[in-house]
Amino acid sequence: MHNELPSILLNAAADEFAKLPGIGKKTALRLVLHLLKQPVADVEKFGNSFIKLRNEIKHCKICNNLSDNDICEICSNSRRNKSIICVVESIRDVLSIEQTQQYSGLYHVLGGIISPMAGVAPSDLNVDLLVQRIKNENIKEILFALNTTMEGETTCYYLYKKISMLNIEITTLARGVNFGDELEYTDELTLGRSILNRQPFIK
Amino acid sequence: MHNELPSILLNAAADEFAKLPGIGKKTALRLVLHLLKQPVADVEKFGNSFIKLRNEIKHCKICNNLSDNDICEICSNSRRNKSIICVVESIRDVLSIEQTQQYSGLYHVLGGIISPMAGVAPSDLNVDLLVQRIKNENIKEILFALNTTMEGETTCYYLYKKISMLNIEITTLARGVNFGDELEYTDELTLGRSILNRQPFIK
Repeated sequence: MHNELPSILLNAAADEFAKLPGIGKKTALRLVLHLLKQPVADVEKFGNSFIKLRNEIKHCKICNNLSDNDICEICSNSRRNKSIICVVESIRDVLSIEQTQQYSGLYHVLGGIISPMAGVAPSDLNVDLLVQRIKNENIKEILFALNTTMEGETTCYYLYKKISMLNIEITTLARGVNFGDELEYTDELTLGRSILNRQPFIK
Repeated sequence: MHNELPSILLNAAADEFAKLPGIGKKTALRLVLHLLKQPVADVEKFGNSFIKLRNEIKHCKICNNLSDNDICEICSNSRRNKSIICVVESIRDVLSIEQTQQYSGLYHVLGGIISPMAGVAPSDLNVDLLVQRIKNENIKEILFALNTTMEGETTCYYLYKKISMLNIEITTLARGVNFGDELEYTDELTLGRSILNRQPFIK
């Protein structure tokens, strides 16, 4: 379709949108035509926001979270519990956990999980920094909050091997039936585990 | 959700995406995190493509179509039939009609249709230019290709009033049952019209 666009500029802009995940060529064209209707200043703000972000964003030197500064807001927040580190795959997981408002400790963003299929080896992850943090700071607990996929489990196991001798408590997110789930449609593994790990009923 | 993002830059970029039609805050964040993984040069190309487009795109001085030059590719193409003008609402309609490969004439892009609800008055449309073209050039036929909505019909009627005395043929797209439609689910108006305008059966 784009080859038939009457303008090289239009083509180029639509192609840029279409490179984004989940955006097809028709949507890309719709978005470009929308931008064309906006004031020049707004479109400049739009385009420059991504360039500025890409050029200026930093990774927190402590936890590898995205940050405007060398040290992220969480690591530099004196009210956070500095004795527990929650290990996550990506910044998106940090956001999800922060939204629950149930966690007040620190994070460690691995930047991926071990995945031979995707070509991610243990050396690609931010593991040495984690081991250093445990050794140098007064960390009492490491909470694994990785996806419960094959890759997540593999990564947990690898990390466990790396830090189990460091004499800290190692925990993982509770597994069980989701709130709102119908048992009939819950997978066997989850249901089986949630029976084994059954909890006292709270009235 | 965005208020909890750990970075002002990230917030700003995600907000820019979320301003686009059909892009929610979650998708916006996903797109921004995708951009963050791309090389700086690619992100600069991405952002600048929209700014360049917005600053440099022109409207064809003849038909009001979008164009890189003063005169668009269609108007300057010597192989197009210069005696017929197809009147459309927007550039998107030009693209749809071009895709059918059934039309080889010129276009006239109104830039909207009359819509009191949306605050579009006849004076907002590119009508004077159309009248001028009919008067000054050797135009034999005007084909109305506007949406078959109340606004489209109103606009057709308004245009008809403006050009009917100019002694040219005025046509409109055939109305009828869509290819692939089941009669049971075709609306009464369309079905009724397609009976009135029934065509010779071609074996």
